[in-house]
Amino acid sequence: MLSSAGARMDPHRLACAALTYLAEPDDAVLGTLLGMCEPAEMVAAIRAGRLPERLIASLADCDPADRAAVTRAMQRWRIRLPALPDDQSLAALCRGGVRLVCPSDPEWPQGLDRLVSARPYALWLRGNADLAFGCMRSVSMVGSRAATGYGTHVAGEIAADLSERGWALVSGGAYGIDAAVHRGALISGGSTIAVLACGVDHPYPAGHADLFEAITDDGLVISEWPPGSRPTRLRFLVRNRVIAALTAGTVVVEAGERSGALNTARHAAELGKPLMAVPGPVTSAQSAGCHKILRDWSGSCVTSAADIAAMLASAGEELPGPRPVVALRPEELTRDDLDLDSARVLDAFPARGAVGASTIAVRAGVDINTVLSRIGRLASAGFIQSSPAGWRLARKAYK
Amino acid sequence: MLSSAGARMDPHRLACAALTYLAEPDDAVLGTLLGMCEPAEMVAAIRAGRLPERLIASLADCDPADRAAVTRAMQRWRIRLPALPDDQSLAALCRGGVRLVCPSDPEWPQGLDRLVSARPYALWLRGNADLAFGCMRSVSMVGSRAATGYGTHVAGEIAADLSERGWALVSGGAYGIDAAVHRGALISGGSTIAVLACGVDHPYPAGHADLFEAITDDGLVISEWPPGSRPTRLRFLVRNRVIAALTAGTVVVEAGERSGALNTARHAAELGKPLMAVPGPVTSAQSAGCHKILRDWSGSCVTSAADIAAMLASAGEELPGPRPVVALRPEELTRDDLDLDSARVLDAFPARGAVGASTIAVRAGVDINTVLSRIGRLASAGFIQSSPAGWRLARKAYK
Repeated sequence: MLSSAGARMDPHRLACAALTYLAEPDDAVLGTLLGMCEPAEMVAAIRAGRLPERLIASLADCDPADRAAVTRAMQRWRIRLPALPDDQSLAALCRGGVRLVCPSDPEWPQGLDRLVSARPYALWLRGNADLAFGCMRSVSMVGSRAATGYGTHVAGEIAADLSERGWALVSGGAYGIDAAVHRGALISGGSTIAVLACGVDHPYPAGHADLFEAITDDGLVISEWPPGSRPTRLRFLVRNRVIAALTAGTVVVEAGERSGALNTARHAAELGKPLMAVPGPVTSAQSAGCHKILRDWSGSCVTSAADIAAMLASAGEELPGPRPVVALRPEELTRDDLDLDSARVLDAFPARGAVGASTIAVRAGVDINTVLSRIGRLASAGFIQSSPAGWRLARKAYK
Repeated sequence: MLSSAGARMDPHRLACAALTYLAEPDDAVLGTLLGMCEPAEMVAAIRAGRLPERLIASLADCDPADRAAVTRAMQRWRIRLPALPDDQSLAALCRGGVRLVCPSDPEWPQGLDRLVSARPYALWLRGNADLAFGCMRSVSMVGSRAATGYGTHVAGEIAADLSERGWALVSGGAYGIDAAVHRGALISGGSTIAVLACGVDHPYPAGHADLFEAITDDGLVISEWPPGSRPTRLRFLVRNRVIAALTAGTVVVEAGERSGALNTARHAAELGKPLMAVPGPVTSAQSAGCHKILRDWSGSCVTSAADIAAMLASAGEELPGPRPVVALRPEELTRDDLDLDSARVLDAFPARGAVGASTIAVRAGVDINTVLSRIGRLASAGFIQSSPAGWRLARKAYK
């Protein structure tokens, strides 16, 4: 299942991991520089305390204020160098229960690329699901920590129903609505993804340790921050853009007028994704944020999983790129659910014995990068499995 | 105050009254014919059992099915002739606590003319307010009979707050939301209008006799059906178009998915008026109709009187014709609140002594029909009063 864990910890992946230690996510300077050079080049530059010559040349034409911002950024990144684990320690982390998923990996969710320069440098994961698969048909449901009985009841019911309809849930890890969403999905045996503002090895709040354990069985606990990181107020806000970007749409279940859930809602709207809110009593301050979304932000009123599914289906027709046609849980996929390239790759496997990716590329007539990305998905879906000699068909492929 | 009661019971008014006895409101055939002839002509035709010659000539070009529909309509109207009170009895009714307001009267609300051929033939009124004034700055609030504690609480609070902001409330006369709306307005000392589906002398439900009495102090109980009429299921639905047409917008407070309040909401939308709904718990069947309005009918989410006032204000800028600028209760109007023609008419009155409308028309340079319509409004607002010698300034005009 762990497609990324099988990958070697090459310099590129080590550099992505290092950046999650050295810089806070959504660092505008780093995001811009990463559009001009590779992560490994960037980490080397931070260690050296000097940008590559061609970047220095580019900056020569910039506003002096921008050059000063880069100088300050280098200083703040370098401050964290002493706390950066060495390469062996990073690689060891990734052989434990924690995985690293980088922008170039098959498991990287395409939705995050819509964040452009605010894209995460990498994601740290715990859990048995495939992140790219899980997000292909997912919806974020968020709300207040200080939820009412009404809010947690409704969040749980709708999440359970969405799970039964094959939607993955994505939320934070807080008490209140977030927890009710995950529990609702788990009750239905569905997959759910908790996006944390701290290290996945040290989940916050501690009272949710059991909940996070349960989530990792069929779902994921993920974070932009490396293992050992502690949450801060700002990190919760920065995290919210990832919740919005991972999913096809965002539903706010119960939120006061100043709830952080409205921040997630704003990110969804800015990303052009459907923004929905569940109404509640107008006498409840905990529903005031939802009503604000409906009244002032052109959000859609949803009262059930059916409403949400219908809204996402109609919005999906307008989304750029192919519509997600796979069911949430990879193990439920059949050959008929596969996209064309995945089907070609699978068809290219020999009936018996193991092969390498390059052999498959030749047999399938598909370029090597496509083969590598599809192999990850096919393995997650249980069609193929790795063996010492390469990849081979798994039992499911013979059905 | 009773501008219409002062008018003589002329043949035109007698005919309008008679039509409310002979035909059900929203009779498509009668509505069409009244676009081609006067009410008095129509009543004479019904009595004679034969349309005027020029209407017969017009119908000659019509589809045979239309001609057959007119023949059947004449039969159903004639069936009620024996139950039609004679002219003396009708005139006597209008000298009691009941008033008749006809489409040509100054007190006739212009909003009803937007119903075109579905316009009421006349309205029967009880109460001390001026109907045209009352509706100039009014909002309809409707909802379920089987309301919850939440619904009646919210309806009462919002109605009271709207009253304090100078808005008249319009609703039906039922238990539940309707009653909560009227009570909320009364608690704030505001004016409210109950639109019934039965005679105003015989209000239904009987348990609301005291409520209707209280409403008539500063407001109105009105009906399209003549005194003595009993409500039917269909009459409640037919009545709903009047509630929507009288007001600047409609708010549904609490309504199940099959509530008659959704019928009123549909009328408001068809008339191009702002349609609003107050959300509630998604777990409450009594709010399902409100959520349907928000989700499927493009209704606006409102949670307070401030929301409603803002919505009506922004919609008012797009409404055809002059915006209503008068406060609800005529007695609260100052000279500065008057429209230009009303101000001209008032200015034309002599400081002492009484004059007739034709004298005012000459002095004000305003045509006689405009003078007559403005005299009604000015009398309702307490600026002028009738005297045996004609109209004269009242004390308020000297302030």
